[in-house]
Amino acid sequence: MMGNFQVELKRVVDDSYEIEIGFGLVDKLIADLQSGLVKVNKFAVVTDSTVEGLYAVPIAEKLLAAGFRADVFAFPAGEKSKTRATKEWVEDAMLEKGYRRDCCIIAVGGGVVTDLAGFVAGTFGRGVPFINYATTLLAAADASVGGKTAVDTPLATNLIGLFNQPKKVYIDVAAWKTLPARQVSSGLAETIKHACLASRELFDYLDAHMDGLMKLEKDACEYIAHENCRIKYEVVMQDERESGLREVLNLGHTVGRAVETVSDYRLLHGEALAIGLAAEVKLAGKMGYMTEEEQQAVIGLLKRADLPVTIPAYIDREAVVKKLYTDKKVKNGRLRFVVQNGIGSIVEFSEGVFAAPIEEEVIRDIIMKL
Amino acid sequence: MMGNFQVELKRVVDDSYEIEIGFGLVDKLIADLQSGLVKVNKFAVVTDSTVEGLYAVPIAEKLLAAGFRADVFAFPAGEKSKTRATKEWVEDAMLEKGYRRDCCIIAVGGGVVTDLAGFVAGTFGRGVPFINYATTLLAAADASVGGKTAVDTPLATNLIGLFNQPKKVYIDVAAWKTLPARQVSSGLAETIKHACLASRELFDYLDAHMDGLMKLEKDACEYIAHENCRIKYEVVMQDERESGLREVLNLGHTVGRAVETVSDYRLLHGEALAIGLAAEVKLAGKMGYMTEEEQQAVIGLLKRADLPVTIPAYIDREAVVKKLYTDKKVKNGRLRFVVQNGIGSIVEFSEGVFAAPIEEEVIRDIIMKL
Repeated sequence: MMGNFQVELKRVVDDSYEIEIGFGLVDKLIADLQSGLVKVNKFAVVTDSTVEGLYAVPIAEKLLAAGFRADVFAFPAGEKSKTRATKEWVEDAMLEKGYRRDCCIIAVGGGVVTDLAGFVAGTFGRGVPFINYATTLLAAADASVGGKTAVDTPLATNLIGLFNQPKKVYIDVAAWKTLPARQVSSGLAETIKHACLASRELFDYLDAHMDGLMKLEKDACEYIAHENCRIKYEVVMQDERESGLREVLNLGHTVGRAVETVSDYRLLHGEALAIGLAAEVKLAGKMGYMTEEEQQAVIGLLKRADLPVTIPAYIDREAVVKKLYTDKKVKNGRLRFVVQNGIGSIVEFSEGVFAAPIEEEVIRDIIMKL
Repeated sequence: MMGNFQVELKRVVDDSYEIEIGFGLVDKLIADLQSGLVKVNKFAVVTDSTVEGLYAVPIAEKLLAAGFRADVFAFPAGEKSKTRATKEWVEDAMLEKGYRRDCCIIAVGGGVVTDLAGFVAGTFGRGVPFINYATTLLAAADASVGGKTAVDTPLATNLIGLFNQPKKVYIDVAAWKTLPARQVSSGLAETIKHACLASRELFDYLDAHMDGLMKLEKDACEYIAHENCRIKYEVVMQDERESGLREVLNLGHTVGRAVETVSDYRLLHGEALAIGLAAEVKLAGKMGYMTEEEQQAVIGLLKRADLPVTIPAYIDREAVVKKLYTDKKVKNGRLRFVVQNGIGSIVEFSEGVFAAPIEEEVIRDIIMKL
């Protein structure tokens, strides 16, 4: 026997990056690239058909004017584009235009674009740098922190992908003005969730500024963009590879995702989440973790954000209960829920355990009455 | 302006792993898994149609007998299977059988299998552990060190993939007995290349033991498997992200790849490499880096390994010269070559520069006479 051979690959990796939050950041992006944010000068601007004309083409034009090489690669907007086929299309289109390892991908758009483009960047030439230019409120948190990139397959959501950190993230709050009102409300649902699980201060701010937020006032938008990043960052930093703590971000998502699926995506993700949060505060109330007043404060805030807090009549509630069992927190066939503790914190059931088993009848009763 | 937000992601990553070289290692693999080499108990055994019955099914059966969950996923053997479509097929087949994040992939086979399975592992559930069980001489070095995984696309070879390190590599020298003789010779070409670029001692060993190697004698096989890993490791360790030094592994590949492509893959990779090495030693001779005797020693050793050292008549030599320009070392339209210095080392043209620009007429003359 020749025996063994040890390959030593212990090293320090620094994936740190900056998130810039502001009102109109295209010129800042170009200036950063001119100062050498990345070491290449060819930029593949990946976007979707909605964002293409609004932000991606203007960015590409400014890149060209600055002397860089740039091309726009736009795929059809929508969750249905988040597939391996779209990834392949982007790759082939980039290869056809002569892109190889010495390029950088700039993702311009919402969560679908940043998830997909970050995944493309992770495997193109075994990894090229990428930058997120987030144009939606939802992407403000999702595309900024956590490094999750992925596509869906017919059998599983977000299961094919990788952890890949951007070189920089730009959150352009001005771009929210071009979002439909329903999308703004949907994004606010995630912000309210963040407040519920981590910050009474953010909750009070939302309560005081909801009218301004609905009108997309600059200061309020910048503030909540910042708080969304900060809260997600604090949770994710402590749990980079998804063990226990990250589950707290799942607050409201157990019922939310079930309702979203059973609605056949007639409800937007944030709308379904709002219903899920309404169910969860009732659960927290039953378990003695929230007063009636606290429950009403959350439900009232969701309503003021023009979000639904009851299950629409066209949704089969029995189907929602059944769907709960496809949740990834299910263990040994038992439903598990993340539960908030008053407003601004999460119940830690035992050390490092943030999701507790709940009897089906308890949550069924809440769903039937919601 | 709300200003910026800094995401700190500096951390120590330990991707170290062991390469085990031996004669029949299936039982060792099972024993390692029983002692907790990886923390999961579901194993997707990924292989090709040639290796499936020989090694993959026996491994899966022993896994089942040891109380693990295991399934074999076999795709058609051959370089043409190294595609995104095959990757997708493996992923879907795994999902259909209920594989999710809590699994480990065991790649059983040669370079195509380990390249593809390592890539699947890197993006399945955003990354699951994988193990390489290498059954070919060529894979002994290629699948063991460097962490390169990839698939081909119609427009580019190995361009879509990622760097992903296995949890352990097994090099089963006994499996070489089931290789066709041409494949053994082809694998020896890479070994001779490693000797030429890094080890006079290995070269002398090959010279002394070529007959035994061609008969696949155990000790000689284990020795060269070990030396292939060691040499590749020493080069790759100093240059993990492919800057300059790793180019030395490209010795003989400039002409080799061109001949391989122009032959339309009638020549195996190692056969084309042997022709490339013959051209390269002549270039080294012309440049004054090798004596006539040293050149003949290399060419003689290639011949004793049943490898071609002249360009077959059916190959258009002009087409080979043209094809040189698609080499990835080409810079500003100029051909660049890695050149050996005597036997066992590489010419360092200036600090950190291991590939020198060569006039087309110089290499054209060599190709025309080869």
